[in-house]
Amino acid sequence: MQLIQQLRQRQPLVHCITNFVVANFQANGLLALGASPVMADAVEEAEDIARIADCSILNIGTLKQQTVDAMILAGNSARATGKPVVLDPVGAGATPFRKASVLKVLDEVDITLIRCNTGELAAIADIPWAAKGVDAGEGSADIEDIAKKTARKYNCLVAVSGEVDIVTDGHSTLSITGGHPMMTTITGMGCLLSSVTGAFLAVGMERPLEAAADALSFYKRAGEQTAKTSSGPGDFAVNFLNTLHTLDRESKTFLA
Amino acid sequence: MQLIQQLRQRQPLVHCITNFVVANFQANGLLALGASPVMADAVEEAEDIARIADCSILNIGTLKQQTVDAMILAGNSARATGKPVVLDPVGAGATPFRKASVLKVLDEVDITLIRCNTGELAAIADIPWAAKGVDAGEGSADIEDIAKKTARKYNCLVAVSGEVDIVTDGHSTLSITGGHPMMTTITGMGCLLSSVTGAFLAVGMERPLEAAADALSFYKRAGEQTAKTSSGPGDFAVNFLNTLHTLDRESKTFLA
Amino acid sequence: MQLIQQLRQRQPLVHCITNFVVANFQANGLLALGASPVMADAVEEAEDIARIADCSILNIGTLKQQTVDAMILAGNSARATGKPVVLDPVGAGATPFRKASVLKVLDEVDITLIRCNTGELAAIADIPWAAKGVDAGEGSADIEDIAKKTARKYNCLVAVSGEVDIVTDGHSTLSITGGHPMMTTITGMGCLLSSVTGAFLAVGMERPLEAAADALSFYKRAGEQTAKTSSGPGDFAVNFLNTLHTLDRESKTFLA
Repeated sequence: MQLIQQLRQRQPLVHCITNFVVANFQANGLLALGASPVMADAVEEAEDIARIADCSILNIGTLKQQTVDAMILAGNSARATGKPVVLDPVGAGATPFRKASVLKVLDEVDITLIRCNTGELAAIADIPWAAKGVDAGEGSADIEDIAKKTARKYNCLVAVSGEVDIVTDGHSTLSITGGHPMMTTITGMGCLLSSVTGAFLAVGMERPLEAAADALSFYKRAGEQTAKTSSGPGDFAVNFLNTLHTLDRESKTFLA
Repeated sequence: MQLIQQLRQRQPLVHCITNFVVANFQANGLLALGASPVMADAVEEAEDIARIADCSILNIGTLKQQTVDAMILAGNSARATGKPVVLDPVGAGATPFRKASVLKVLDEVDITLIRCNTGELAAIADIPWAAKGVDAGEGSADIEDIAKKTARKYNCLVAVSGEVDIVTDGHSTLSITGGHPMMTTITGMGCLLSSVTGAFLAVGMERPLEAAADALSFYKRAGEQTAKTSSGPGDFAVNFLNTLHTLDRESKTFLA
Repeated sequence: MQLIQQLRQRQPLVHCITNFVVANFQANGLLALGASPVMADAVEEAEDIARIADCSILNIGTLKQQTVDAMILAGNSARATGKPVVLDPVGAGATPFRKASVLKVLDEVDITLIRCNTGELAAIADIPWAAKGVDAGEGSADIEDIAKKTARKYNCLVAVSGEVDIVTDGHSTLSITGGHPMMTTITGMGCLLSSVTGAFLAVGMERPLEAAADALSFYKRAGEQTAKTSSGPGDFAVNFLNTLHTLDRESKTFLA
């Protein structure tokens, strides 16, 4: 059985500590996919939620100081029971606060996968040319090398999104082509991808590198298919949720 | 005049202390229905907003400690002037923090109606089998009994959502059938229902049990009608807002 | 070249300190328009983000005490490098906390433009009849006078939204007609307008009054065009994002 079918059968509970900008899109995306979202970022309960969830997603999009504490509690709680933890270092290089917070989480939690873009990777890896602005697609050879080094340093998977996605465990690297430029026109596409990757990992921890690559590939195909029927960013977002629901489902009829 | 017509004429101001995941959907749903939303969860102003609003909705979806304080201030402010207060105990059984917070609000505020699902009801009533996971539809006879006991204990209405909704004042119980499984595929449908019920109560406090039942019935019919024209969870959410606007309106043309 | 074309070419980075109800709609609206949103409200980084952004938007929709501090830090950081700062005093008259916060921000930050409705303007100007409820359209002659006085008092532009929008620098006043009543049926339309105006100012600070009027006019036309193809508030919101993308673009095909 394909991983997406296993995911839809098991409906993993995906715990998200995420930003308030994309929380709704992320929750609806996980539901559409076939997973069960639980959005809980309070330091008072992060540990408890992570314990009952099948994976935790740590997204620093609208970070506050106490959210960092919640992330560390949640991350360690999830890992203590062998569940995957995905870190999404949104805009890691934009401010010293973000960068320091990301490095603190990486230092204190045994992260399973970092899902980022090239600029965020450069910030984590402390690459000087990042400060001048890094776009996906530029210096791709270097990006793979930096991703591998980062994966080895933190003993985790690193997935870098762009025109071509890559995911590496520090030794092997898989590349995923496809996708569509429309995916860059709405907010939260990267954040939702991190959650989707977490859902795939929740049911695919026997082969995590392949599970992550499966998620990235599924997502790019969903973007391609959605682009065919979308006339602008407004309906692209709506249609993308529909596609997450139907893609690779035997019946293409909603709920059938 | 039907309650929904009264609601659209009076456009009650519905104060929501709610979670950041569904706040946008909840506000747009109330606007589409014909009510006026005001989303204000700061402890600095919760009391003032509740005083000028026609009802207050307390939703613990992404609770923080200080939100509990805001809820108690708002709830007591609303009740002091006879306005209804709806409690939505989202995931009450998921963590000790949520359960303790819900019980604290119930202890300190004279809640008008608890709008919950079976799992949340079980958590509030401290029913041990809740811990094993409770789905709507299972053990419905028991659910009615627990709902009635909870209503008597807190001297409030209790509405339990599921394939069949029930609402009780502890003595009489009304059942509402209908709805559609698509309603379970997007986030915030329960949260919005709590707000909609509050809007109905704001104009129907002469007969609150019937007003709550009216709201539940209206909502289930809106779900049924929306399902007919929706192909997935993305457009279901969009179309549901349209339906909230047109259902039981004489003119079916937007703004006409 | 028209301002909207300059905006799409330069893609200004628009920093929003905003409420959690509309953050998603606001970010997607800015992206659709052709700007780059960055939503960051933490006091820990507000100053840093404002420094790298092309303008900052301060929206008090779901204000907390520490957000006021973040706004002052961000506002002064933006102004120190000559970037425009837009203040959106959402519901300024609703509670003493909101009014005091707005006056504090106006006192401590050299605001470029206040974008508000008539009720909010009245609250800022301390006009007694505001307390009885002020609707757009009533007493429009007085509104212009109050707007001009407010503009002179705070040495800024004041834009007041309504059936007819006005914008003034305290001396000259421009009026913008158009728009559509559907624009009042979804949450966040005013909040997004403030951000859009900020994006126009970011590329039009040579003639700020005209840039603001351009933004108001563009937005009203977007509403009119969207209304033609929308059947309810649900799809109006979706279609409005599409329109923001295509309006005044040579190619009407998404991403072409």
